[in-house]
Order: sequence, then structure tokens, then C-alpha cells
Amino acid sequence: MQFISERRLDDGVVEREFTLGDIPGILWTPDTITEPVPLVLIGHPGGVRRMYPRLAARARHTVAEGFAAVTIELPGSGDRPASPDAERARADLRAAITAGEPVADEIVERLITPLVDKAAPEWQATIDAVLDLPGITGPVGYSGGVIALGIRLAVIEPRITAALLFAGSYVPRAMFAEARRITIPLHVLLQWDDEGNDRQLALDLFDAFGSTEKTLQANMGGHTGVPWFAADNAQRFFVRHLKGERAAV
Amino acid sequence: MQFISERRLDDGVVEREFTLGDIPGILWTPDTITEPVPLVLIGHPGGVRRMYPRLAARARHTVAEGFAAVTIELPGSGDRPASPDAERARADLRAAITAGEPVADEIVERLITPLVDKAAPEWQATIDAVLDLPGITGPVGYSGGVIALGIRLAVIEPRITAALLFAGSYVPRAMFAEARRITIPLHVLLQWDDEGNDRQLALDLFDAFGSTEKTLQANMGGHTGVPWFAADNAQRFFVRHLKGERAAV
Repeated sequence: MQFISERRLDDGVVEREFTLGDIPGILWTPDTITEPVPLVLIGHPGGVRRMYPRLAARARHTVAEGFAAVTIELPGSGDRPASPDAERARADLRAAITAGEPVADEIVERLITPLVDKAAPEWQATIDAVLDLPGITGPVGYSGGVIALGIRLAVIEPRITAALLFAGSYVPRAMFAEARRITIPLHVLLQWDDEGNDRQLALDLFDAFGSTEKTLQANMGGHTGVPWFAADNAQRFFVRHLKGERAAV
Repeated sequence: MQFISERRLDDGVVEREFTLGDIPGILWTPDTITEPVPLVLIGHPGGVRRMYPRLAARARHTVAEGFAAVTIELPGSGDRPASPDAERARADLRAAITAGEPVADEIVERLITPLVDKAAPEWQATIDAVLDLPGITGPVGYSGGVIALGIRLAVIEPRITAALLFAGSYVPRAMFAEARRITIPLHVLLQWDDEGNDRQLALDLFDAFGSTEKTLQANMGGHTGVPWFAADNAQRFFVRHLKGERAAV
């Protein structure tokens, strides 16, 4: 993990860009750490630079609750080399949507499965590197989309003890078997009026999760319009599970 | 409104039983009121005496956030005269469930519509009486089931400006038209693994609500097992909408 920049934001957050091998990433931490803080992985659909304002807002909200937050670029996104197979699958997906056809599971499979297979070990390596830094300790939470990546990590990575999943992105049907194997607490956010979202798939997936503690919170506001109170509830979920505290009401 | 008993609970809550005409009810208030508090109606499926422990717990949680809370007995429940028609409809409902058949809408209609028609004005009269007391002011929130009663009150009673609805009880299909007319903020709680619950009906109903701010929160824990964090989120909903405050995180 090679740090390439550092700046102090006005709310007491230190933001550091880094590379992990060829993978660019950003780490956000409190500027003073008196006792080790848990780590939250900030997931996204790819394109860290393009999504920076939203990612940074989520990360700063997370750090304000006493966590470190980290994100890395996804395979094939941003400045990372494109995957011709993924580009073809994405084109087929767009064509199906434009034609008003249902998106065939084999397209989702071609788009998502190789992405998750490649990304999951990269996020695990990121956990390794960040937990080696002073002042940052486990447990680890995963927050966001791609929901399929969150599912994979929740199954294979024992340091992740709670996951906040943004429903809405595509999940291959084959991954429902993985969803059933999840046992950690889940908080699932669904934007009910997101037109580009397969709501029934999100509900089926929520039903499939094996966790005994799972919450689905559906809100209005469109694809990017998660209300502030839903974000607050989600932060409380991490405080509860990663810090073992009942947040002050 | 005739008070018939008063006792001070150990958490600074005053509990007073009353009658409003022939209708028994309970009012919970903070023992000291420095400025007027908003009112929350504590809804339930009928049987105040039987449900007292759960109703009192919800009311005390509500009063702790700076509200007054009130409930009254439903028509045909507790010590109130039974309705032969409602008893027949209830028997038909149980027979359908026992036979493993879907519950016909006409049974739901016979059970719920007369109940709501009779109960709604009684709850409105209760609002009139409670808001006449010193230290209790609007706005008013409705909390709980019978969800059909919450829907009716949310449509007809302008003093109710926010409603926390417990999904799960039966709603006649004809009431979906009323659900579409609701515009106040809604927070809907659904126990996902409640076997006795028509989950699809709850989701369809949530979809139908006309409100631009509506949240569905689905949790595990069975019919009566709403988790404490979901109850906390629900209280924050009332703080936000009846007191105009953003609860401390």
C-alpha cells in the first residue's frame, strides 16, 4: 500500500489516496485516533473518480461515527484496464434495456460473476493492508453496492461482521445460493421508486439471505436519493455491530 | 373525558385511565410538562387490557421522547359490546385460515370496514378531548395497527401529520383507494417472517400509498418481535415529523 497524497478535510477527516499494486484507492480516517477504530469498506459500482463526491460524503459520515473508511477501484473501471468481455456484456445489457426486454440472467452472469471473482480478493487484500496500519483494527463492515460483491465478501471474509447492502444492482441467480449462506447481520437499503431497479429481485434476495438479523429499509427519492434519515439509520447499524454500542437516541 | 385512575410510573410517566362516553382508554403523559407536547395515538388490534404490557411499553417509549400517548378500546373488543356481524366474520376468517384457504376479500370487508367506520370517529373524538387538556397540543401521530384504521385516519383527520403503520393486519381491497390518497409521511413496519401475515399485501399496500415520504422497514423476529432498533428508528420518525427536530445521532 503506497500512499500518494494526503489532505486534511475541514471536518477532522484525513483523506489519503493510495495504490495497492495497480489498484487505486482512497482511505479516510479521523485526524486523531485515541483508540483503534473499526473499518468500513465503501463499495460502489465502479468509477471512483466519477463517484468521488458521493463516496467522500459517505466516507466522511462514516468517519464521523468513529470508523476508518476505505474504497478501491473496481476491475475494468476508472483508470484500470477495461475487460472486453465485461464491455460486451454491458453492451448486451444496455441493448436489452433499450429494447424494453427483460435482462437475461446469462448477461448478468457474464457481467457480474467475473467482476466479483476478481474484485473480492482485491478487497480482501485491501483489508489486509489497512488493518496493518496503526490505529485501525477490525471488525470490518461492507457498505454499498455492487451488492453481488457485498454478498461474496460477506460469505468468504470472516473479518466482515456486518454488511449494509444497497439493493438495485444486478445479481446472477446462481449467487442466491451464496446469499442463503450469509449469517452476519445485514441492513439492506432499497430505493423503492428507482425505475432502473428490479424491485422483485431485491425482495427475493432479501428473503434469501440466511441471516437471523436482517433489515430491509425501502425509501423514496429515486436511484441516488437515499434520505438522510436512512443514512443515519444505516450508520447506527454499523455502530451497533462494529462497536457494540447502542447509539444515543 | 372522565378520568377514573391515575398512577405515577417509575420512569416519570403518569398513566391515567379514562372513559370517553362508554369507551375506556388510557392516557400517558410526562409527569412534568414545561412546554406543550405533541400527541401520539397508540393503535392496536383490540383488547386494551389483554395487550396492556405491550401498549404501555410503546407508550412509555413514546413519552420518553417528549410526547403524550393515548389509546382507546376498539368497538367490539375488551369490555365493549361484541358485534355479532364482526364475530361471524372473525369466525369465517379463522375457518379459512384453518382450512389453509386464502382469506376472501369479502370476509375482510365484513370484518374490517364496519370496524374502521365506527372506530375512526371515536379516535377523532379522543383527539378532541386530549387536545383540550393543558400541556398537550398538536400535531398528532398515529402509531400501530389496525393498519386499516391508520389509513382511514391518515386520510380524514388533518391533525394527524405523520403515521407509523404496522403492516400485517387485513385491509379490504377497497381501502387501497384510500391508501392512494394519503399524503402525510409514513413509516411502515413489516415483520418479514410473520407467518400469519400476507407479505405481498403489505408490499402492495406500501406501493399504493400516495405519500412522497414513505419508508418501509422490514425486520425479522416474528409477529411480536419488532427489534429495539426498529422501535428506535420509528420514534425518530415521530421526533422528526411531530417536533420538527433531527434527533441526535
